[in-house]
Amino acid sequence: MAMRTIGARELATESARLLSAMRVQRPLVQAITNYVSMDIAANALLAIGASPAMVHAAEEAEEFVGFAGALVVNIGTLSPSFVPGMEIAAAAASRLGKPWVLDPVGAGATSYRNRVVDQLLRFRPSIIRGNASEIIAVARIAGVDVETARPKGVDSAHGVDQARDAAIVLARRLGCVVAATGAIDFVTDGERVAEPANGAELMTRVTAVGCALSGVVAAFAALTPDRFLAAAAATAIYGVAGEMSAERAKGPGAFRVAFLDALDAIDEADIARRLKVA
Amino acid sequence: MAMRTIGARELATESARLLSAMRVQRPLVQAITNYVSMDIAANALLAIGASPAMVHAAEEAEEFVGFAGALVVNIGTLSPSFVPGMEIAAAAASRLGKPWVLDPVGAGATSYRNRVVDQLLRFRPSIIRGNASEIIAVARIAGVDVETARPKGVDSAHGVDQARDAAIVLARRLGCVVAATGAIDFVTDGERVAEPANGAELMTRVTAVGCALSGVVAAFAALTPDRFLAAAAATAIYGVAGEMSAERAKGPGAFRVAFLDALDAIDEADIARRLKVA
Amino acid sequence: MAMRTIGARELATESARLLSAMRVQRPLVQAITNYVSMDIAANALLAIGASPAMVHAAEEAEEFVGFAGALVVNIGTLSPSFVPGMEIAAAAASRLGKPWVLDPVGAGATSYRNRVVDQLLRFRPSIIRGNASEIIAVARIAGVDVETARPKGVDSAHGVDQARDAAIVLARRLGCVVAATGAIDFVTDGERVAEPANGAELMTRVTAVGCALSGVVAAFAALTPDRFLAAAAATAIYGVAGEMSAERAKGPGAFRVAFLDALDAIDEADIARRLKVA
Repeated sequence: MAMRTIGARELATESARLLSAMRVQRPLVQAITNYVSMDIAANALLAIGASPAMVHAAEEAEEFVGFAGALVVNIGTLSPSFVPGMEIAAAAASRLGKPWVLDPVGAGATSYRNRVVDQLLRFRPSIIRGNASEIIAVARIAGVDVETARPKGVDSAHGVDQARDAAIVLARRLGCVVAATGAIDFVTDGERVAEPANGAELMTRVTAVGCALSGVVAAFAALTPDRFLAAAAATAIYGVAGEMSAERAKGPGAFRVAFLDALDAIDEADIARRLKVA
Repeated sequence: MAMRTIGARELATESARLLSAMRVQRPLVQAITNYVSMDIAANALLAIGASPAMVHAAEEAEEFVGFAGALVVNIGTLSPSFVPGMEIAAAAASRLGKPWVLDPVGAGATSYRNRVVDQLLRFRPSIIRGNASEIIAVARIAGVDVETARPKGVDSAHGVDQARDAAIVLARRLGCVVAATGAIDFVTDGERVAEPANGAELMTRVTAVGCALSGVVAAFAALTPDRFLAAAAATAIYGVAGEMSAERAKGPGAFRVAFLDALDAIDEADIARRLKVA
Repeated sequence: MAMRTIGARELATESARLLSAMRVQRPLVQAITNYVSMDIAANALLAIGASPAMVHAAEEAEEFVGFAGALVVNIGTLSPSFVPGMEIAAAAASRLGKPWVLDPVGAGATSYRNRVVDQLLRFRPSIIRGNASEIIAVARIAGVDVETARPKGVDSAHGVDQARDAAIVLARRLGCVVAATGAIDFVTDGERVAEPANGAELMTRVTAVGCALSGVVAAFAALTPDRFLAAAAATAIYGVAGEMSAERAKGPGAFRVAFLDALDAIDEADIARRLKVA
């Protein structure tokens, strides 16, 4: 599969441009996310410069999508009472041409999760953001033939390397952007590839850092019609902020604090100086 | 409308007196609040000296109000499954003469929220605490004629200045206290006015700081039958703690940590030295 | 009642051994826990070295127990929609011989909570972890005759001393381990007793620190068939981490951050040097 790979310099330029736009436009991001991640996801969105709103009920999800710049749907702590709101919001976003991000937490771990992911895929997510195991599981649900083992729990049992092909085929099949994140991220729309390579091991030691990234990806997608660039920039900036934080904090408690501060403080110079790709 | 305005000195004296009472009495505050704010609201209540209990189910809400010193009902992350418990608890508080605080998060943003606020107003909240846009929206729901634009999302689209008249008329019409909080707060019972003017811009960069304030207002209302003084003191002390924190923390992650520490550490001398009004 | 009391030295040795195993095995812990505690419980589990998964829906609770090393069920923020998932997961854990921990938050405070605890006891928890008032309430629900007053709210109205006899009789009657935690903890299986005596007053000033301990107890129970040792070691290590944190942090905001860092950093030497028993 012939792919165009975006280089560090181009990615840094685009990321800095979108970050500036974020801080001027402060896009409203509607988040239907899990209980564990609500606090850090809202705080990460505020820190990066967006305006979060956690609105999930079926009674108002559609009306709210009308104001929102983007939507994120995250299936961690899944239960049936959240599904109708997710579907209504995703359908509204699709119909209105607003970007929506699917975070398929724990996909592949239980058949219930797989069924819900299958339902949500019908509403054509703009971007799917997950760890390697989740992306592989979603690809399988979408009918892509992938040979790997089944994940354990909600942490990834696979490296991002193992999810590359699944991500590309999935992106092409659904006409969406796929971002498999890990030590090195892999972002693709089926034709272009970005592989941001910043980040820090401590990002895996704080709960819901990945979930919060999906919200940040949605915020960037509210700023540009190029959803590949949005996902690549969000992922790259997130990793740079993680790297900056890990230089200041050694434990997971301090890291979380430093990370929110870094999302707030990160600027064009940090991105230009630090951003690297695989 | 002739109003009596409470001065900085009187407000500082009353606030210090109530804060001392808080730390001796440790009132039990029942919170029916949104998922995003549960953690910070419970921690803010513990830090200021109260005893929080997050009890929302219809099956036990009424029984629990019997022990509680005050109740806060917050409609962020609203869904139908929370509404019966909210109504039962609010009705019980009204019947038992216990103070209850309504935090109408996102009022005005969707028609569903407006309907639920309308239902809750029937149980006669003692205090309504919101940002300017929310107070304006609640006033409209209560039939007050207000001319302003519709809010966007859950962040305020209005300055507190724009909510002054709506707050006064709302307080008179419902016989309650209204606290519109922002850069300068506006607290009124329709006859008296307090305008605490401390605070920090960073308070708007951490999620659910406003929601947590509503819990703290409820805690103060458990200490005195004068609900105007309770709301004014809580709002003033909260702002002073915010100002103290912003001197020590520059980013939103560190600010949240410093803010909880300040709510714990704040004393009579801090209040006397710092409290200011508009 | 003749009991064998485990000494500081033996407890330190066993705790260090289990902590090493934790960091190698990284057990998957399924948590059905309350909204307030989800964030800190997941972060505490990650910090100590376990892999948390917050999976509560009836639709997948049983399937997930099949992968998990242990389960914790916590009834804070109780509502009927969570109960079927709790029962299904607890039943599955019992049937599969996997350890499950019951955290009976607020037991004794309302009749609804008492009914749900009564239902859950039928699934034979391996370990019950609560404050003194909760343990006394559970003992009463299990038919143990205890003479004390009714608790107020969700904070303990009793000292652990008052819960000793109830804990022992409860452990014998249900054939489980009971851990009543407070300034000095009391852990028993009806024959053996451990009384870890580290900890810090600040642990009571941060919400859900007790709830997060129940998750950590479950993680240790995934490592050894001796559930008494698991509960005693988890409780002891938690207290040592609390003591370490209180030396570095003076307010509740900073303490929470330091505590997660201490759970991550604590090692055999810390345990050997600091662990004490009553």
